[in-house]
Amino acid sequence: MKDVKNAYDVIVVGSGFAGLAAAIEAREAGARVVVLEKMKAVGGNSAISDGGVAAAGTDLQEKHGFKDSPELMYRDMMKAGLGINHPRLAREVAERSNEAFRWSVDHLGVEYMDRVDHFGGHSVHRCYTAAGRTGATIIKKQVEKLKELGVEIRLGVYLKTFVQDPDGRVCGVEVREGYDYRDPEAGVDEVLRARKAVVLATGGFGSDLPFRSVQDPRLTAQVDTTNKPFATAQALKEALRLGAAPIHLSHIQLGPWTSPDERGFGDGPVFADYIVFLYGIIVDPATGRRFVNELGDRKAVSDAILAAGHPCIGIADEAPVKAQGWDLSRALDKGVVRKFGDLKELAAAYGVPADELTAAVEIFNGCVVKGKDEEFGKPILPDAAPLARPPYYTMRLWPKVHYTMGGVGIDINARVIDLDLKPIPGLFAAGEVTGGIHGACRLGSCAITECLVFGRIAGKNAAVSSELQA
Amino acid sequence: MKDVKNAYDVIVVGSGFAGLAAAIEAREAGARVVVLEKMKAVGGNSAISDGGVAAAGTDLQEKHGFKDSPELMYRDMMKAGLGINHPRLAREVAERSNEAFRWSVDHLGVEYMDRVDHFGGHSVHRCYTAAGRTGATIIKKQVEKLKELGVEIRLGVYLKTFVQDPDGRVCGVEVREGYDYRDPEAGVDEVLRARKAVVLATGGFGSDLPFRSVQDPRLTAQVDTTNKPFATAQALKEALRLGAAPIHLSHIQLGPWTSPDERGFGDGPVFADYIVFLYGIIVDPATGRRFVNELGDRKAVSDAILAAGHPCIGIADEAPVKAQGWDLSRALDKGVVRKFGDLKELAAAYGVPADELTAAVEIFNGCVVKGKDEEFGKPILPDAAPLARPPYYTMRLWPKVHYTMGGVGIDINARVIDLDLKPIPGLFAAGEVTGGIHGACRLGSCAITECLVFGRIAGKNAAVSSELQA
Repeated sequence: MKDVKNAYDVIVVGSGFAGLAAAIEAREAGARVVVLEKMKAVGGNSAISDGGVAAAGTDLQEKHGFKDSPELMYRDMMKAGLGINHPRLAREVAERSNEAFRWSVDHLGVEYMDRVDHFGGHSVHRCYTAAGRTGATIIKKQVEKLKELGVEIRLGVYLKTFVQDPDGRVCGVEVREGYDYRDPEAGVDEVLRARKAVVLATGGFGSDLPFRSVQDPRLTAQVDTTNKPFATAQALKEALRLGAAPIHLSHIQLGPWTSPDERGFGDGPVFADYIVFLYGIIVDPATGRRFVNELGDRKAVSDAILAAGHPCIGIADEAPVKAQGWDLSRALDKGVVRKFGDLKELAAAYGVPADELTAAVEIFNGCVVKGKDEEFGKPILPDAAPLARPPYYTMRLWPKVHYTMGGVGIDINARVIDLDLKPIPGLFAAGEVTGGIHGACRLGSCAITECLVFGRIAGKNAAVSSELQA
Repeated sequence: MKDVKNAYDVIVVGSGFAGLAAAIEAREAGARVVVLEKMKAVGGNSAISDGGVAAAGTDLQEKHGFKDSPELMYRDMMKAGLGINHPRLAREVAERSNEAFRWSVDHLGVEYMDRVDHFGGHSVHRCYTAAGRTGATIIKKQVEKLKELGVEIRLGVYLKTFVQDPDGRVCGVEVREGYDYRDPEAGVDEVLRARKAVVLATGGFGSDLPFRSVQDPRLTAQVDTTNKPFATAQALKEALRLGAAPIHLSHIQLGPWTSPDERGFGDGPVFADYIVFLYGIIVDPATGRRFVNELGDRKAVSDAILAAGHPCIGIADEAPVKAQGWDLSRALDKGVVRKFGDLKELAAAYGVPADELTAAVEIFNGCVVKGKDEEFGKPILPDAAPLARPPYYTMRLWPKVHYTMGGVGIDINARVIDLDLKPIPGLFAAGEVTGGIHGACRLGSCAITECLVFGRIAGKNAAVSSELQA
């Protein structure tokens, strides 16, 4: 190997939840570790996520009186994934979810809000929100731990390709150091040697227009994304060129809680996801009627809105807005969330047939009173109340590309598998760059869980890679 | 290149509809062509297909009074494919469908029955059936044409890997000559040179248990297939190792017209597909009720039967059995199709609640009289009649793996595209080994059409490959 200036035991590519979890575990297992991040800041899309973690059987659930089990979480994941999830991998995430959540609290010191939420497609309240409602809270603690452990995170270092031994074992990476996405010529090439293994944790490809649209041609430039522009398929493609098995690449998730009235993830989703979907309704402005279980999984809700053919209106009254206590001021200032004194005014503003809307609200309120949504099967939460306390808050909803379920195949040890389903020696992967765990649709808050669970597995195993492969 | 005993202009790998169409066109464009087939007989799965071809705007449609257009066929394909079909490729198939159908008649001399059928998911009658209701009719004529053109079809020659020029151009194949699937050691390796191009036409991977079940883990060994055991992913994997773009691999079609009471494709489908789905009903034995539009696309009907959790019962009366004239004697002898004097007897045989079944038949008969299925939206065909003429014919239905929508990506010229969506020089593909045309679900009879359309495109372009790539 030429120009090898630096050698490590384990090279982790990507500095999101999965990469940092892998780096911590690998270092704690005694390996000399480096983390490579192509951008000038640490954390990738993880840092802009809303910091929601799903876990089954936690103390927080017990404290708030919610019963749950890993088996139930596993079944929810398989149901949302339309059954094509890799069962062993999905089960591993569910069974280790509480352990990973505890690890983030006990080992990293991550603080979570004292609340448990019920997001779409989950059977129960099992989602925890990091303090500040941002993934940056978790990333910050992971970075602190790595500093404490003496692990270097090298920024502006872009994976160009993998380096293999003559016998096919991944033994390093060729990178561009000093990478600048605005200037592809910037920086210099360098080869880094990995004595034990490389961990691929480079995230999804939601912003990679050519790659995502060849998998799902509907996702043209006209469809916005919640991802940052750096969420490309480049590293994934390198792994595929190495012979990694491509799994579920055409299953690309649209988030149903986004607004067409702002770019990217924006300020609307907290209102839609934590208030409307739980306590409110979504109506089609053309009919004034509900048309979907607002607490369905992301695919179910997004598909229903897309089928309407135009943005639909999420509506809640003041009760949950006050009770949940989220700060909606930015969303209100931007006009992404709006406020109306009564339903008539609301209907007029969106051109919704007012009588139909009033009827739809009355039917829904009847369901809330009965504790059962006979129209669409939405779970009526214990603290739900009829929509009758103005002002009414609204938001237009139109899905955006949020998450790519597909990626490279891995086994239960986070080893990347090849087209013959055999592990590629020296290569591990975790997080959104992998495929299989979520099948056709990932449930909300299961991504961070997966990143922590499989990031840790990848890091531990990478540190003892030669023994594992032997 | 070592050991090159033989050089050709164009090497076609696979001897199904697509490969033979490519070979004919390449030869007629002046190329020296060879066709390689790994089995000891020509035709692959094509030879055991039922020989149905879909085409829009044909003379046969006009003769039988059916109005159609390529635009309508394209829209049907996109709708069944859940919109993720590659639009340009799907449109090409629809627009060239009549030309391909005519070519099979006028240029190859294929004979079709004097009938036009309406299969699930199509908006109109647009499916033609080769004489003898077998794809072998078409294969035979393709083989005759190749003989006339002096093109050799080499049997027992298995693709091991592609050979590339130093600049990455595919310039040949390494094969095992004298291949015998029962003895992997049999035969000798040989390199064949392709001066212009290689055409990959190796079919789908419906019988490749590891490869199909990593894409869709529900498709275990417990799920039967209509494919022959040789339908593996081996050549597809070689193309992926070369860097071909993997498209829609996890979309695997189950045929809804198969019986759990026989192995493989069997003798039941002609009854289900040509009689029950068009003129009869499917009931869930647990409820005695209909639950699906029997003329929905294959995914819709298969998913509905799978959701029932057990085989369901297809029922027709004697009227369409007589009118359609299919020979059901083998299916009846095997007990795959059964015959009952009245509904009560039928209900008793399958343990169906008799009153419910009678009610379901009455409701359906009402729909037939009205010309509109208000329950499930099944199109009521002009020659449909109420189910009231015993004996009643029945068949248990349970889906089997039938077709793999996914494969390598191609462009409109049938050039295989790589992970950056650029053509791989010297490599073309057509037929089931490609992905994108049918999206999430292929409509019945569109496979042969696609094989003829894109097989011809691949062959023509392969013959002038260097000009095209320049």
